[in-house]
Amino acid sequence: MISTPDTISHRPLIALAMGDPAGISSEIAARIVTSSRIASAARLVVVGDRRILEQGARSAGVTLHIDTVSGNDIGHADLPVLVDLENLAPQDISFAEATLVGGRFAVESFKAALTLAERGQVDGVCYTPFNKKAMRLAHPGYDDESRFIAEHLNLTQRVREFNVLDTVWNARVTSHIPLKDVAANLSIQGIRDEIALTVLCLKRSGIDAPRVLVAGLNPHAGDGGSFGTEEIDIIGPAVAAAAQDGFDVSGPYPADTVFVSALKGGFHAVLTMYHDQGQIAMKLLGFERGVTMLGGLAFPVCTPAHGTAYDIAGKGIANPLASEEAVLLAVRMAAVDYNGVVESV
Amino acid sequence: MISTPDTISHRPLIALAMGDPAGISSEIAARIVTSSRIASAARLVVVGDRRILEQGARSAGVTLHIDTVSGNDIGHADLPVLVDLENLAPQDISFAEATLVGGRFAVESFKAALTLAERGQVDGVCYTPFNKKAMRLAHPGYDDESRFIAEHLNLTQRVREFNVLDTVWNARVTSHIPLKDVAANLSIQGIRDEIALTVLCLKRSGIDAPRVLVAGLNPHAGDGGSFGTEEIDIIGPAVAAAAQDGFDVSGPYPADTVFVSALKGGFHAVLTMYHDQGQIAMKLLGFERGVTMLGGLAFPVCTPAHGTAYDIAGKGIANPLASEEAVLLAVRMAAVDYNGVVESV
Repeated sequence: MISTPDTISHRPLIALAMGDPAGISSEIAARIVTSSRIASAARLVVVGDRRILEQGARSAGVTLHIDTVSGNDIGHADLPVLVDLENLAPQDISFAEATLVGGRFAVESFKAALTLAERGQVDGVCYTPFNKKAMRLAHPGYDDESRFIAEHLNLTQRVREFNVLDTVWNARVTSHIPLKDVAANLSIQGIRDEIALTVLCLKRSGIDAPRVLVAGLNPHAGDGGSFGTEEIDIIGPAVAAAAQDGFDVSGPYPADTVFVSALKGGFHAVLTMYHDQGQIAMKLLGFERGVTMLGGLAFPVCTPAHGTAYDIAGKGIANPLASEEAVLLAVRMAAVDYNGVVESV
Repeated sequence: MISTPDTISHRPLIALAMGDPAGISSEIAARIVTSSRIASAARLVVVGDRRILEQGARSAGVTLHIDTVSGNDIGHADLPVLVDLENLAPQDISFAEATLVGGRFAVESFKAALTLAERGQVDGVCYTPFNKKAMRLAHPGYDDESRFIAEHLNLTQRVREFNVLDTVWNARVTSHIPLKDVAANLSIQGIRDEIALTVLCLKRSGIDAPRVLVAGLNPHAGDGGSFGTEEIDIIGPAVAAAAQDGFDVSGPYPADTVFVSALKGGFHAVLTMYHDQGQIAMKLLGFERGVTMLGGLAFPVCTPAHGTAYDIAGKGIANPLASEEAVLLAVRMAAVDYNGVVESV
């Protein structure tokens, strides 16, 4: 769909799945529902339980005006609506405890939101933070959202996590695997695919000519082969091939200076080879503000990068800014006509 | 020796080896020689070539007053002195070129400075930046300063690199090796030794009760064994053993938040498992300001963390602050009576 900010009815429809109920997720959901910044950019479809959302509103000190709709017909209302799954009563959870019922609530809400998007009833999905322990209690084998989404939607294509902080994105070739297995999981084709997906997602977010920096794997990017050869054998050839494909990409660069370079401006993303190579930098640069985007789907999925913050659950002091940024990124990406492009990645 | 700042003659004697002559090293050496901040803390013994040092002084726009002494008798002068190796003429080098003659100059100057310290003629060694390519031309097999020093001094004990930025130190268990080999290079005893050496060096730098955070190896520190087991099998037991030995140490913590925790204060060092785990953070936090310290010797060896900056060679705009911090750290560490403690590590 095309975004026309001056026409309210053309604001993208974003499903907001309620996350783990024992932390700040419900409080943040209530703040998002009542945010004028969000209201002017998106039409929200909250997915979860009204009682938990009301509990969040009480924590946040806000008053909700939100109609309940059916998941089969979410309507066309300009104001936020709720798909009430009636799947958790407040008395069944305690703050700051990761539990099976809390995990079930988050898993069910997330699944329902993804289904709305899969059916084309919404343009994008956001969710407030999950607790990994609770998710595992409810869904054994749960590793991360990428794998969960791919399983739930029976996808064959890659679903990849991007971290977005201010103007710099971080994409990664490998993620939640042991460090010792990273090198064996690199391939020229795999890195080319990640570069292509990164550029695609950047374009969808509104960046016309994305420029991507690629990190090496080894100290000093191998220092000419002295400390590892993956830069020479795999990463370098992948970057060269991607450049020949027309992507504005360069590297491999030493991991310890590639973010310093990216921050100087003129670049949109750093592709790292493993989880902490990017996460160390991104979390140092602004743990609270970051957004995580799951790319490779036919619709955007965004969430704040921070966690459930059990230590401040129910206190009314949760900062909704990262969640707002997550919704706004989903809005920008949902405004682009995906037009089947994802299949080409 | 004991530091008594009010008595000039008790300022530690620090050998300053001149680094790669094609970059900013000579300009910085000249600035250090003429720095009143350094003069009030240290007695300097510059090791290199007077002609190159004078060239640096011209770049810096400073006037040198420095007597030449013999390496066999460096005397007891209060003012900076020069051990003139007469090992490079300015016409034999060009700015911004890594060459054999430039590398030889740096290698010879560094060796001579280390020899002064080994003989007990100086209390510590500093050097202005080396160029790795030039060092390799002059000394095939040169990987890093740790190995170079161990070879030159025929040491059997560990020489380890520490990075110091403001109040936080970074020590690492492995350094210049391929990433795929990191896991196989971790051992309980090795990590215990690194913790002990880190605490020792912190104490020598003047911190009475060092507190050390230890990073995990895998994403989310393995997340309970889901993404790797080194935290359970090796790092956790090493930290527990070190704590039983009386060290104030904890971990393993996820690598992507351990520096965030350290920066909040109350901690003095982060021990990382591999090069980039620490370097990504340290370089983001202040590439220009950092100091590298080589620990495990009977004397401190310190240098600025930045490089030779070929792009601004000879321009008179090199920032000497990190080199000043390097000398001041060496001064603090040289003021401690080492008293054979190093053998116990």
